[in-house]
Amino acid sequence: MEKAEVTRQVIEAKQRLGLKWKDIAGAIGRSEAWTATALLGQAPLSPEEAQKVGSLLELPEDAVQALTVIPYRGTTVPMPPTDPVLYRFYEILLVYGPALKELIHEKFGDGIMSAIDFEMSVRRVEDPKGDRVQVVMNGKFLPYRKW
Amino acid sequence: MEKAEVTRQVIEAKQRLGLKWKDIAGAIGRSEAWTATALLGQAPLSPEEAQKVGSLLELPEDAVQALTVIPYRGTTVPMPPTDPVLYRFYEILLVYGPALKELIHEKFGDGIMSAIDFEMSVRRVEDPKGDRVQVVMNGKFLPYRKW
Amino acid sequence: MEKAEVTRQVIEAKQRLGLKWKDIAGAIGRSEAWTATALLGQAPLSPEEAQKVGSLLELPEDAVQALTVIPYRGTTVPMPPTDPVLYRFYEILLVYGPALKELIHEKFGDGIMSAIDFEMSVRRVEDPKGDRVQVVMNGKFLPYRKW
Amino acid sequence: MEKAEVTRQVIEAKQRLGLKWKDIAGAIGRSEAWTATALLGQAPLSPEEAQKVGSLLELPEDAVQALTVIPYRGTTVPMPPTDPVLYRFYEILLVYGPALKELIHEKFGDGIMSAIDFEMSVRRVEDPKGDRVQVVMNGKFLPYRKW
Amino acid sequence: MEKAEVTRQVIEAKQRLGLKWKDIAGAIGRSEAWTATALLGQAPLSPEEAQKVGSLLELPEDAVQALTVIPYRGTTVPMPPTDPVLYRFYEILLVYGPALKELIHEKFGDGIMSAIDFEMSVRRVEDPKGDRVQVVMNGKFLPYRKW
Amino acid sequence: MEKAEVTRQVIEAKQRLGLKWKDIAGAIGRSEAWTATALLGQAPLSPEEAQKVGSLLELPEDAVQALTVIPYRGTTVPMPPTDPVLYRFYEILLVYGPALKELIHEKFGDGIMSAIDFEMSVRRVEDPKGDRVQVVMNGKFLPYRKW
Amino acid sequence: MEKAEVTRQVIEAKQRLGLKWKDIAGAIGRSEAWTATALLGQAPLSPEEAQKVGSLLELPEDAVQALTVIPYRGTTVPMPPTDPVLYRFYEILLVYGPALKELIHEKFGDGIMSAIDFEMSVRRVEDPKGDRVQVVMNGKFLPYRKW
Amino acid sequence: MEKAEVTRQVIEAKQRLGLKWKDIAGAIGRSEAWTATALLGQAPLSPEEAQKVGSLLELPEDAVQALTVIPYRGTTVPMPPTDPVLYRFYEILLVYGPALKELIHEKFGDGIMSAIDFEMSVRRVEDPKGDRVQVVMNGKFLPYRKW
Amino acid sequence: MEKAEVTRQVIEAKQRLGLKWKDIAGAIGRSEAWTATALLGQAPLSPEEAQKVGSLLELPEDAVQALTVIPYRGTTVPMPPTDPVLYRFYEILLVYGPALKELIHEKFGDGIMSAIDFEMSVRRVEDPKGDRVQVVMNGKFLPYRKW
Amino acid sequence: MEKAEVTRQVIEAKQRLGLKWKDIAGAIGRSEAWTATALLGQAPLSPEEAQKVGSLLELPEDAVQALTVIPYRGTTVPMPPTDPVLYRFYEILLVYGPALKELIHEKFGDGIMSAIDFEMSVRRVEDPKGDRVQVVMNGKFLPYRKW
Repeated sequence: MEKAEVTRQVIEAKQRLGLKWKDIAGAIGRSEAWTATALLGQAPLSPEEAQKVGSLLELPEDAVQALTVIPYRGTTVPMPPTDPVLYRFYEILLVYGPALKELIHEKFGDGIMSAIDFEMSVRRVEDPKGDRVQVVMNGKFLPYRKW
Repeated sequence: MEKAEVTRQVIEAKQRLGLKWKDIAGAIGRSEAWTATALLGQAPLSPEEAQKVGSLLELPEDAVQALTVIPYRGTTVPMPPTDPVLYRFYEILLVYGPALKELIHEKFGDGIMSAIDFEMSVRRVEDPKGDRVQVVMNGKFLPYRKW
Repeated sequence: MEKAEVTRQVIEAKQRLGLKWKDIAGAIGRSEAWTATALLGQAPLSPEEAQKVGSLLELPEDAVQALTVIPYRGTTVPMPPTDPVLYRFYEILLVYGPALKELIHEKFGDGIMSAIDFEMSVRRVEDPKGDRVQVVMNGKFLPYRKW
Repeated sequence: MEKAEVTRQVIEAKQRLGLKWKDIAGAIGRSEAWTATALLGQAPLSPEEAQKVGSLLELPEDAVQALTVIPYRGTTVPMPPTDPVLYRFYEILLVYGPALKELIHEKFGDGIMSAIDFEMSVRRVEDPKGDRVQVVMNGKFLPYRKW
Repeated sequence: MEKAEVTRQVIEAKQRLGLKWKDIAGAIGRSEAWTATALLGQAPLSPEEAQKVGSLLELPEDAVQALTVIPYRGTTVPMPPTDPVLYRFYEILLVYGPALKELIHEKFGDGIMSAIDFEMSVRRVEDPKGDRVQVVMNGKFLPYRKW
Repeated sequence: MEKAEVTRQVIEAKQRLGLKWKDIAGAIGRSEAWTATALLGQAPLSPEEAQKVGSLLELPEDAVQALTVIPYRGTTVPMPPTDPVLYRFYEILLVYGPALKELIHEKFGDGIMSAIDFEMSVRRVEDPKGDRVQVVMNGKFLPYRKW
Repeated sequence: MEKAEVTRQVIEAKQRLGLKWKDIAGAIGRSEAWTATALLGQAPLSPEEAQKVGSLLELPEDAVQALTVIPYRGTTVPMPPTDPVLYRFYEILLVYGPALKELIHEKFGDGIMSAIDFEMSVRRVEDPKGDRVQVVMNGKFLPYRKW
Repeated sequence: MEKAEVTRQVIEAKQRLGLKWKDIAGAIGRSEAWTATALLGQAPLSPEEAQKVGSLLELPEDAVQALTVIPYRGTTVPMPPTDPVLYRFYEILLVYGPALKELIHEKFGDGIMSAIDFEMSVRRVEDPKGDRVQVVMNGKFLPYRKW
Repeated sequence: MEKAEVTRQVIEAKQRLGLKWKDIAGAIGRSEAWTATALLGQAPLSPEEAQKVGSLLELPEDAVQALTVIPYRGTTVPMPPTDPVLYRFYEILLVYGPALKELIHEKFGDGIMSAIDFEMSVRRVEDPKGDRVQVVMNGKFLPYRKW
Repeated sequence: MEKAEVTRQVIEAKQRLGLKWKDIAGAIGRSEAWTATALLGQAPLSPEEAQKVGSLLELPEDAVQALTVIPYRGTTVPMPPTDPVLYRFYEILLVYGPALKELIHEKFGDGIMSAIDFEMSVRRVEDPKGDRVQVVMNGKFLPYRKW
């Protein structure tokens, strides 16, 4: 079964069963951000995780199997993103990218923030002038190797 | 004076004077992330801020003036970014974008995180397995208008 | 059901039943511009709105359900648009874009017109030399945050 | 003199003299939107208009001459626009484009809104929840010729 | 029925019945160029025209209906065109475009040749050194509006 | 001397001397369309033609020499064209291209209209409803070789 | 029947029947290069040629019919080619293109090698250091028309 | 000295001295095609060859030196080529590419024609119906390695 | 059978049977890297190899047949790659490409590393600070031909 | 001083002084591959390394200073590369990329080869059938984080 088809079944089941991402995350002991990432086809689940998700979402066996496959990542977001939610992150890179590069180098030296040894979270922060979205990205600093 | 030329002079003066972004930020009472963004040509300073930065960095008067101009933003980062520091943020959008969209909608409904009423910070988090880069993005949630 | 399929059914039903956008808009108490936007797959309806539209257009239940899903926006217009109706708006941005930017900054300062807290209308204005299309766009001004 | 150089001189003089677009527009009896468009290099002035603008902005004779040249339009906005002010109009086309096409055809039949026999205005609309940008676009409807 | 499918049926029927474009054009009182344009999915027919074409080409009712729909134009020619017949017109624009612009402005002033209030014809011109293709394009001059 | 620089000098001299393309064309016994094409850097002049144009436009000797060089054609029009005059011809290809291909094949068989053994003209056609631009393109039909 | 489907059937039949391109070419009295070009969907066969090929390859009648249709050429090679065999020809154009242009102009004057009145062949040339591929391209020189 | 500047000087000297490519080729004992390729900046000359060319074309010492540098190849032809001479070779790849691939595989098996161990020539072939350009490409067949 | 379908069946069978690439490679006496390349549709197997693979993986006869077809290579990796594993190799080319070119020329002269007479391997190298991926690429040096 | 200018001076001095990359590498105790990478502007040198290189290559002080700046990487190789040496690595990714991904996952699990904690070497391997280029890439395996 193709990853795209599993994703479709996951979304449909989640909606039908009235579950939230944190419910599914709780069932496998993972964060909601990682769980959503994996079930949207961008990371593989372990066989045990896949079984638990399959039970919770009442997925067929071949979908459970497909959840454990390491995916070709990054195939679902067109670039530049046409969807405004995603485009704003692209715009943040256009506008704030130079400052991100400068600050990382000033604080760490020559290297990068890993996007592999990486985690993130999305939180709703209450604010009287309108609630705010807080996205925390956290990646290991990798210094450039000299040899 | 062109924004690109001011940026060049700012970088040169900052290096010559041995200043850090937070030193410059302190002089105008702003965060280091916003200060770096503005001095890299991606936001205008108020005339007072520009004067203070000009004094600190010993910039000529036309550079001070140029710092107050509202810029055409986003012109310095090629897309996709060729620089690995910036590319990793692009990759995060490719891989974690679908989860970002899902979680924002689940927590807030139909709308976006603003990239205008927005702030961010970059912090070094110590970790025995290797220090980590933490980027916090914080933007107002804007619900889609229906009319 | 995919958004594209719902859109196809909506268009077909609208034509078969001889309805206009304002007829459908009237049934849910919305403007014709927003109603067309939503039924063309670019905005979600509330469950109540979806039920009313479903009754009016005699849509099956899964189509009604699909109308309430928050879409991936912006996927149906290729850029640059090949269709002349849409291309003219693209051309307006090419030719009048610099003036739009200048005037918004002169009247409001540094910031943007929101495309989220936004509404628009299309009206036919009679003119002896040939009737005219009037498009009114109205979005909240969002000032850039400094922090 | 190149259009880009004239534009640079116009912007510099406007700032130095503390003029607004409507001041310049008043001097030639045109709207501020058209005046900004022309002085940003996207439309030619008549010789009389160019003389008046030249006097007001204290431009050299070759700049005045250059203002009357019919330009290659559309060369200053990269597509997709990297600047957020301009990008929002691009996004409006992505999201609201299908509705614009539908409504124009429903109200007028097969044809387009002209971007040549076209005018627009930008206005600040006060609003207790935050002032709003109103852009009115008005173009002649051109029906497709059948022959 | 999709426009692409109607086009396929039209081409097939035209071939099967041994008709030429001018035969079909004659049946609806239009030029062969416009008739070919419409039947290739780039313009809508009136209901009467569609009925006549449907009878002549023995099309099913839903194809007749589809012929009256206003299309999304311009979706069938990839750009740059890979087909040599179409590429030559693209090349003409590359090579002769600057002269076209200069001559239109010299003869008419600032404005364009309309591609909407437009007609064209294709004719075979006999020539002893090899017959020639003559394409006549004729569009209303639209002067740029100043306001 | 670069072609672009010659073009700049030609345009400047033409304007200064109050000449029209047909005046220059007359001096060398060519059509105004070909003359404009060549002087805009898209075709080489013979040495005699270059001398005559040089005298008429009071060009320096190295510009006269440069006019005789066979150019790299097609380098001045960006694709898709951002200028509306040129874009309309691009749009004609998008919308009317399929009909052009069909009609050429129906009248001539498998082959193309040459863009090399090619000529064109631009004419102003008076019309009470607004004068019209008539562009006549005329190219030798080249049948595909079978071997 | 679509050209792509005919091509698929031709390739399959050729393999099944153990034929070579020159066998098929011999049956219709054409060169192997043209025959391969036509049967890969890039040129139309005459009805007689199509019948002969149909008999030889045991194709169904609608495939035979489809072989006579003038194709939209150039749709099967993505550019730049991802396949190394085809990419090498693309690279030859990148590296040797300037010399090709210079030599054609030196030997013929201003004009081009036709790709329509054109033939080519592919030959295996034995060589003790490794056999060589020889591709001969032969096209009529077309001088640019001046008018 | 940059390759582009050397090329400019070579072209200028060749024209001033009335030399042809085969004259320069003769001076270094190479073919005219390779000589043109190298002097247009697409291949390095040996020091001896560079000295001979420098003497013949009266080039300064730093130009002679620059002729021996191994270049970044392929930087002067934009893709797709806008120049019609070069475009025709691009089109040949679009139209005849599938046949080239098939014939090379049929005659040689799995592998490619080298574009490195490669030579070519351009020749004028007289023909009563119009002289023809003959381009012969000859590259070593390289079989794909299996390991 | 399409290559993509064969690949799908191979992956599925390999997983079902619990085989590793080196198991399959062993069955045909090839390296695991070449075997994976071929079974992922990027190289043809000999009929004998295909039979052995077919037996081992229990593939149907038409899949075995399809494995022997010379493929259109390079069609499965979008460029730039969206998948992070593949992107890193793309990034290596961006960052280390200039050094690769310099070192190859310094050690070998003007020419390239063949990607046809080429082999590679992937190995896991143990390292107390974290195991490392070692990719060895080995291609014949091909000197540029001068003629 | 811009990185590009330093690179130019380094290349010129290296050639003038008859040095090889390993000579420069030896002076700073680094590998030739890293040294070439850094001096071609793709990595920063430490101040001590920069001083040593400056002495060896007789560079001015501002060039020495510029060598220590962390660069925007990846700006000198256009993609796809037009130079054949670099293109071959791009092609390797097209053809062998799927196998690289499969083998890395089979040997290591879900994760990537780092391009930051990475080193490489280029070596000449003698071979009677023609010497071979051996490129060894060695990067730390980074497992994807789950959280």
